[in-house]
Amino acid sequence: MRTRAAVALEAGKPLEVMEVNLEGPKEGEVLVEIKATGICHTDDFTRSGADPEGMFPAILGHEGAGVVLEVGPGVKMLKPGDHVIPLYTPECRECEYCLNPKTNLCQAIRTTQGKGVMPDGTSRFSMLDGTPILHYMGCSTFANHTVMPEIALAKVRPDAPFDKICYIGCGVTTGIGAVINTAKAEIGSRGIVFGLGGIGLNVIQGLRLAGADQIVGVDLNPAKVEMATRFGMTDFVNPSEVEGDLVAHLVELTGGGADYTFDATGNVQVMRTALEAAHKGWGESIIIGVAPAGAEISTRPFQLVTGRVWRGTAFGGARGRTDVPKIVDWYMDGKIEIDPMITHTLSLEDINKGFDLMHAGESIRAVVVY
Amino acid sequence: MRTRAAVALEAGKPLEVMEVNLEGPKEGEVLVEIKATGICHTDDFTRSGADPEGMFPAILGHEGAGVVLEVGPGVKMLKPGDHVIPLYTPECRECEYCLNPKTNLCQAIRTTQGKGVMPDGTSRFSMLDGTPILHYMGCSTFANHTVMPEIALAKVRPDAPFDKICYIGCGVTTGIGAVINTAKAEIGSRGIVFGLGGIGLNVIQGLRLAGADQIVGVDLNPAKVEMATRFGMTDFVNPSEVEGDLVAHLVELTGGGADYTFDATGNVQVMRTALEAAHKGWGESIIIGVAPAGAEISTRPFQLVTGRVWRGTAFGGARGRTDVPKIVDWYMDGKIEIDPMITHTLSLEDINKGFDLMHAGESIRAVVVY
Ligand SMILES: NC(=O)c1ccc[n+]([C@@H]2O[C@H](COP(=O)([O-])OP(=O)(O)OC[C@H]3O[C@@H](n4cnc5c(N)ncnc54)[C@H](O)[C@@H]3O)[C@@H](O)[C@H]2O)c1
Ligand SMILES: NC(=O)c1ccc[n+]([C@@H]2O[C@H](COP(=O)([O-])OP(=O)(O)OC[C@H]3O[C@@H](n4cnc5c(N)ncnc54)[C@H](O)[C@@H]3O)[C@@H](O)[C@H]2O)c1
Repeated sequence: MRTRAAVALEAGKPLEVMEVNLEGPKEGEVLVEIKATGICHTDDFTRSGADPEGMFPAILGHEGAGVVLEVGPGVKMLKPGDHVIPLYTPECRECEYCLNPKTNLCQAIRTTQGKGVMPDGTSRFSMLDGTPILHYMGCSTFANHTVMPEIALAKVRPDAPFDKICYIGCGVTTGIGAVINTAKAEIGSRGIVFGLGGIGLNVIQGLRLAGADQIVGVDLNPAKVEMATRFGMTDFVNPSEVEGDLVAHLVELTGGGADYTFDATGNVQVMRTALEAAHKGWGESIIIGVAPAGAEISTRPFQLVTGRVWRGTAFGGARGRTDVPKIVDWYMDGKIEIDPMITHTLSLEDINKGFDLMHAGESIRAVVVY
Repeated sequence: MRTRAAVALEAGKPLEVMEVNLEGPKEGEVLVEIKATGICHTDDFTRSGADPEGMFPAILGHEGAGVVLEVGPGVKMLKPGDHVIPLYTPECRECEYCLNPKTNLCQAIRTTQGKGVMPDGTSRFSMLDGTPILHYMGCSTFANHTVMPEIALAKVRPDAPFDKICYIGCGVTTGIGAVINTAKAEIGSRGIVFGLGGIGLNVIQGLRLAGADQIVGVDLNPAKVEMATRFGMTDFVNPSEVEGDLVAHLVELTGGGADYTFDATGNVQVMRTALEAAHKGWGESIIIGVAPAGAEISTRPFQLVTGRVWRGTAFGGARGRTDVPKIVDWYMDGKIEIDPMITHTLSLEDINKGFDLMHAGESIRAVVVY
């Protein structure tokens, strides 16, 4: 079949919206009509050429929601008409990782996904002249139709709006999951969130959901205060306004350091500050941000010997097929909010404007609706 | 009263054995006759002058065992004749830290302990001319008699030999506790231990006690193999004999990386290797070694984002009054071994020989018996 897609033809260039060929689903695969997709920093990391593992031409996008149109042979859990959210971290429920309760990093299709192809080693997308186009993070939600392995699709309730729940495909789950699955923050915890962008705001509402007593937000941009407060921030710190040492200031503000701190900036200096602002004896610091290629974190080992713990999280530690439907329920039940974070809605034709808004820091999330 | 002690008069000099004055126990304090004491790297770190927080003159030593001679007013849990092990990490059971099950770092007497004095701000030791001598780590087991706060003494069974269980006051508990309290290693785990000295050997027997399936020891010194094997090591790796990347070699040897890795060298490069040799998704790396002043650990944050956890441990995460008596029981019941690690027994007069043996790498533990 043919579908419309925004194609990344080469690194550093705007995406080009065009007609492409899409082959039907093979064994274990599903054809999905994407109804809406968010534009995330990771898409831009690859589009810009900064991602050393980026490959072109490719159809980017990994934060979507849509409807199953057709299933390939062997597909058991999905049928046409099901509403789904694509998962860049799949959940096969059979590999060594899925069977270990400590991780969500299913490895079933890791190698082929990293190469931009389906598990059989080939791509379903091609140019009208036949040149293959690569998949991206196993999702390619910047196409109106895509093909994905069944294990990389979470079935969700049919009454949830696509243009909001697409954000659960990455940002919402990453932020809330970092609190619930990775930190496992207890009621009454104190938290510090560095970076109040699309991820940080979701960490904040995750802390509120978990019953935190104090939720400190840290950002260089004071324009973030209003929205962060709305999502549960109790204290705001602008590092550029702190006289003296930022760590000492945060330790004092939290009565000895926070139980949980989160980096949602991707800046390795901030990651160090986050670790050192965690409470001696038991504070845990969770890295969510993705650092530039080659950047390293560092600290004195004494920080760890005196009881701080340094962790990271990918996709918020969520097992997508199991956890994403629950987060959709939380949204529909009003336990979490998404709508105010979707600051811009665009057509596919205007997708490059979404990247511009992101660069200008004007959007929290821009969503493309097909 | 008067007692004999090995006094550190100034940084970098051998200890001097002499008569010193010792005041009796004040409120909440206990007079202990030390029967035996181990000589640990931390004592040497201070003696040598490398410890930026070292103060002189002081009576070093923190790995002892002895008998209560007299108790001060308000002492409730101890009486003359009780056998005790001094605790450089006390357990008051009342501070914010003691009441938090995630940490063992009791803060009740931290400030005064760090200054080399008892909780009332004064020292019990002095030269015969009246010059005060500082306490060390709240213990000062290089004196035949010492005064300590009650909360810093673990009461142990009376039939356990002092010249063996003194080692439980630091090395044994640090190593075994790192496995049991900090890593909480499960039956069937795979572990890697970097550094097969006095601490690393106890990590190895801790892993054996915890039912580990694979226990890899890593050391530059092949002379360590025999003893480590005796304590449970299943595989030995000498980094100087590995061709190519050490991390890759260890990941291959452990079938994907270890569930738990431990640094018992104090070398920050080794700490990085230990983290990176932990299993993707769930491997945890525990820093035990004490690095040189100012040294920093570093890695790419991707190591944590893909599921590795970086921790540290002090005194093996043990709560001394609660856990040390249990470890003494394990020794008496034959669940753990100590005797082969006590390679040298000395008199107080020969204490400097103990430091020489340590520097020469000839001893695992030299113990002074009074
Ligand atoms: N681990 C994962 O699974 C995962 C998933 C998605 C995104 N991410 C990463 O999370 C990070 C955050 O993403 P986002 O969409 O929220 O980005 P964003 O640009 O919307 O927000 C980043 C925020 O950090 C603030 N900031 C920048 N430097 C700062 C500093 N030095 N101190 C304090 N605040 C600072 C900015 O003002 C901004 O508000 C990115 O690195 C992204 O790649 C990780
Ligand atoms: N965290 C705590 O509570 C605590 C308590 C006591 C001791 N320590 C620290 O633990 C560390 C180990 O103490 P120890 O008494 O076992 O020391 P040790 O000198 O007896 O043993 C160290 C071992 O590491 C080996 N080693 C050195 N460099 C190495 C390298 N690059 N690669 C592999 N092996 C290497 C040596 O050959 C030696 O066998 C020290 O740093 C000590 O200060 C920590």
